[in-house]
Amino acid sequence: MIVILLSGGSGMRLWPLSNEVRSKQFIKIFNDPTGKRESMVQRVYRQLKTVDPDCSVTVATARSQIPAILNHLGKKVHISIEPCRRDTFPAIVLATAYLHDVMGIPEDEVAVVCPVDPYVELGYFEALKRMDAQAAKGEANLVLMGIEPTYPSKKYGYIIPNDCGAVSTVKMFKEKPDAAAAQEYIAGGALWNGGVFAYKLKYMLNRAKELLNCTKYQELYDHYEELPKISFDYAVVEKEPSIQVIRYRGEWKDVGTWNTMVEAMHGNTLGHVILNEQCENVHVLNELEVPVLAMNVQNLIISASPQGILVTEKHASAHIKPFVGMIDQRARFYEKAWGEIMVLDVGESSMTLRLKLIPGGTFRYHRHELRDESWTVVEGTGEAVVNDQTIPLHPGSVVNLPRGCMHNLVAYTHMTVIEIMCGEKLSDDDYIKFPRDEKRPHF
Amino acid sequence: MIVILLSGGSGMRLWPLSNEVRSKQFIKIFNDPTGKRESMVQRVYRQLKTVDPDCSVTVATARSQIPAILNHLGKKVHISIEPCRRDTFPAIVLATAYLHDVMGIPEDEVAVVCPVDPYVELGYFEALKRMDAQAAKGEANLVLMGIEPTYPSKKYGYIIPNDCGAVSTVKMFKEKPDAAAAQEYIAGGALWNGGVFAYKLKYMLNRAKELLNCTKYQELYDHYEELPKISFDYAVVEKEPSIQVIRYRGEWKDVGTWNTMVEAMHGNTLGHVILNEQCENVHVLNELEVPVLAMNVQNLIISASPQGILVTEKHASAHIKPFVGMIDQRARFYEKAWGEIMVLDVGESSMTLRLKLIPGGTFRYHRHELRDESWTVVEGTGEAVVNDQTIPLHPGSVVNLPRGCMHNLVAYTHMTVIEIMCGEKLSDDDYIKFPRDEKRPHF
Repeated sequence: MIVILLSGGSGMRLWPLSNEVRSKQFIKIFNDPTGKRESMVQRVYRQLKTVDPDCSVTVATARSQIPAILNHLGKKVHISIEPCRRDTFPAIVLATAYLHDVMGIPEDEVAVVCPVDPYVELGYFEALKRMDAQAAKGEANLVLMGIEPTYPSKKYGYIIPNDCGAVSTVKMFKEKPDAAAAQEYIAGGALWNGGVFAYKLKYMLNRAKELLNCTKYQELYDHYEELPKISFDYAVVEKEPSIQVIRYRGEWKDVGTWNTMVEAMHGNTLGHVILNEQCENVHVLNELEVPVLAMNVQNLIISASPQGILVTEKHASAHIKPFVGMIDQRARFYEKAWGEIMVLDVGESSMTLRLKLIPGGTFRYHRHELRDESWTVVEGTGEAVVNDQTIPLHPGSVVNLPRGCMHNLVAYTHMTVIEIMCGEKLSDDDYIKFPRDEKRPHF
Repeated sequence: MIVILLSGGSGMRLWPLSNEVRSKQFIKIFNDPTGKRESMVQRVYRQLKTVDPDCSVTVATARSQIPAILNHLGKKVHISIEPCRRDTFPAIVLATAYLHDVMGIPEDEVAVVCPVDPYVELGYFEALKRMDAQAAKGEANLVLMGIEPTYPSKKYGYIIPNDCGAVSTVKMFKEKPDAAAAQEYIAGGALWNGGVFAYKLKYMLNRAKELLNCTKYQELYDHYEELPKISFDYAVVEKEPSIQVIRYRGEWKDVGTWNTMVEAMHGNTLGHVILNEQCENVHVLNELEVPVLAMNVQNLIISASPQGILVTEKHASAHIKPFVGMIDQRARFYEKAWGEIMVLDVGESSMTLRLKLIPGGTFRYHRHELRDESWTVVEGTGEAVVNDQTIPLHPGSVVNLPRGCMHNLVAYTHMTVIEIMCGEKLSDDDYIKFPRDEKRPHF
């Protein structure tokens, strides 16, 4: 099976565990079967590989998510990079063209598109396999997943099928009805639209030709910003007469808000947490190294990270977005291809960061014009190159990096480095890359 | 007036704003008349100086509190250092001997002893002045403050006076009665014992002679550890037949727990806090740089510091002590005579600290055997001396301090330095002072 995982999302609704760089699918809140913590994207990938070990996975995402994708999934996945955010139709077309032009997948093959963040059981991915097989038959242009509803939700789109078979054609779609209408649809056999669909590559390339007048990956990539912001549902699904739907019955949670997220969590606490016996229905997620102590509180979600602290009644947590909008969202922790960064301190014209590099983790050779930096190694070994001079690094090594000097960093082992920046302007823009030089390690 | 302020206390009940080093009297939670934040000890000192500008203040305290005392009160106060914690009787005797032997105050003068942490109005300090004048008359050996009770508290000791005059003799004492008995005492004119008393120095020195067989400051100081752990109430007050009590009527709050503390607070929030409109009766005290967001919560105290995070129902906050006992209490922020320290990161064998030095702030010349250090200046100017070599410091300066090297630090202006320690053993014991050398700056 060839799968495209759509990885979008912003960091608002699960603040402070998410931020402008870490979307919800990268929060390690779940447990894998061995008890190890895993993120949503790791869980979905593990489940996909369980039902189909040969499954080829391409993640369609923004450039900013690439480090996190690599850290969570390694280099086992392909990545279709969206140069900027358009809606789902351009993203799916770009990923489909990537499969065809870059990966060389023939246009008669089927792709299955799936969001990266459903909290589901394995049966969901078995249904994906059935969708793949069904699309391969070519009886319809598009095969959708219909999720059997458990209550008359007003949040979802409904698919009204022509019959109650395991595979059926579609009569019509209904977007977010009121509860009464939803009740009526469900009585008539309606299904939730889970945003999962399978198609042959050529079908999507034809839609691209028709709607975007372009089917070539490179061209789509280069002109991505000019593509219309249009959803796949609107551009394709609602206009397509030849659609089949395959039923899925089983756990399906849309864990996009705190109160739904904690329901999917294993246990009530994560991290260093003390609850007294009088606490009831409390979930605490603490990513700080210092403890959270909660006493005699009920129906709360408490979450702490280097980004901030949230204390909210459970239902109110769904309405967090406007308040998070009031908060400075500059990320205080984020992942990089070489490891992770945590901001320890922000001064008037300084910043102290903790860099954790993975073995082999490497910075590109670069310099800054407006800031001095220093690196102090506190754990692990590696080397730095400063103005073409190699400096071996071990715990206690201090490297002085005055502005203008070229520098990079390579970790031999897991390595922790405290980086201190000093300068009038501390900006990501003040980063001048050295022209690639194959003699030097780089990412 | 000569005042001895008893400054004791541990950091348990107001965790996480207090810790093993910062007792509650050093939390800057109140507002002075100009709106500037002030601590309990600053408030009491300011009030004392308001009613008696010539007041001489001696703080009786442990060595560990000296930096905080100096930072909060400057060098305007005298300090009687308790070499270890004994109870109030040895502390008061030592401070009295300090007044007599070190400060040269004649034994016929009066001292007024007062706790450092009452939350009171100015009238309380006016009462102190009346106590001072009354004790000077020599009608009784001891003059106590009796606080007019506002409710039949079971927490306090009661003084039963012989009459209802502004000054009266004492019939008896009753320690922490039940509510019914308290009610009865109050009906009979009883007063709360506020732990404030005035006496002539010679009276206390006589008690010391009698009970400790010693009245000399240096001798008391040198053998302090051998003195009995005994309270002033038990050793002196309860056995003294010649006592007068002076009434105080007015605000008197014992702000020793979170729920009483926040009642004395100006406003509901401190620091970077966002409350939605549905929050009711919530106090949030945030000493972190990142925000606390609270939504739809009621009757809570939320407090965050580098030490940890507390979320508690208000009344439950009084029962925090056993839970704090479960938490690693190594201080993550504390004051020094030269400024303040905040722990930014703790690694397996490393620690990153932010040092904020005040102008003129100076480290003693010292070295470590088991750790390398580095200093990076991120704000201000100063100088370091490393192995007798002077290094000028400005933002961006990096000083490498391999183990064994002698070093000190002097701030010319306000100066912020990131210090990184690396070593197998990071202990306060690994600190070898250079013999004092008057040519070098030192504290």
